Amino acid sequence: MPDAEGHPDRAEMDLGAVLAALADPLRRSVVRELAAAPEGTARTCSSFALPVSKATVTHHFRVLREAGLVRQVNRGNSRMATLRRADLEHRFPGLLTLLATETNTEAPTGPAGA
Amino acid sequence: MPDAEGHPDRAEMDLGAVLAALADPLRRSVVRELAAAPEGTARTCSSFALPVSKATVTHHFRVLREAGLVRQVNRGNSRMATLRRADLEHRFPGLLTLLATETNTEAPTGPAGA
Repeated sequence: MPDAEGHPDRAEMDLGAVLAALADPLRRSVVRELAAAPEGTARTCSSFALPVSKATVTHHFRVLREAGLVRQVNRGNSRMATLRRADLEHRFPGLLTLLATETNTEAPTGPAGA
Repeated sequence: MPDAEGHPDRAEMDLGAVLAALADPLRRSVVRELAAAPEGTARTCSSFALPVSKATVTHHFRVLREAGLVRQVNRGNSRMATLRRADLEHRFPGLLTLLATETNTEAPTGPAGA
């Protein structure tokens, strides 16, 4: 069962949910940025400067969290997101490499595919 | 521009559209079956015995075709689908391997994620 924050454990991760989460370009950009950053990088949601409302950012991070792509934890007054890299590489080998092949020239411009 | 049948050319394929198409378990099962079959295998839509109406099958194949995952051509009285394996491996290396990691024990049972 997912924990109180909605994080599935490794065995619960579902490829369909992961692919649905990644069908959105903004969510894909978040995962791609975290995957390109050093292992263990933790960032606030607002640090991604997504061009959408705060409520929409919250929604996108919930989708990422519930699919198992990111883990969110509270640190002091901040809510930090980290990539679940080891879990993803174990369950879905090749996924992060696949996302990295998408060039950043396809900059996210809106909620297409949301 | 996609051709008259809605097939994008290789350069037009979009990762978001591909991931959205594959978020559905029935569509994923079609691609997985074609990927596991010998190169060049061509099958009718009905040969997949999807547990949904004919109209829904047609819809699913349209989504797969417009994302660039399959190519559909008429042969005599039949409409045959083939996997665009070379195009997919060129544009999205690792994608077919990723799909193959999903076990068939997760048999599609309905339109979840449709």
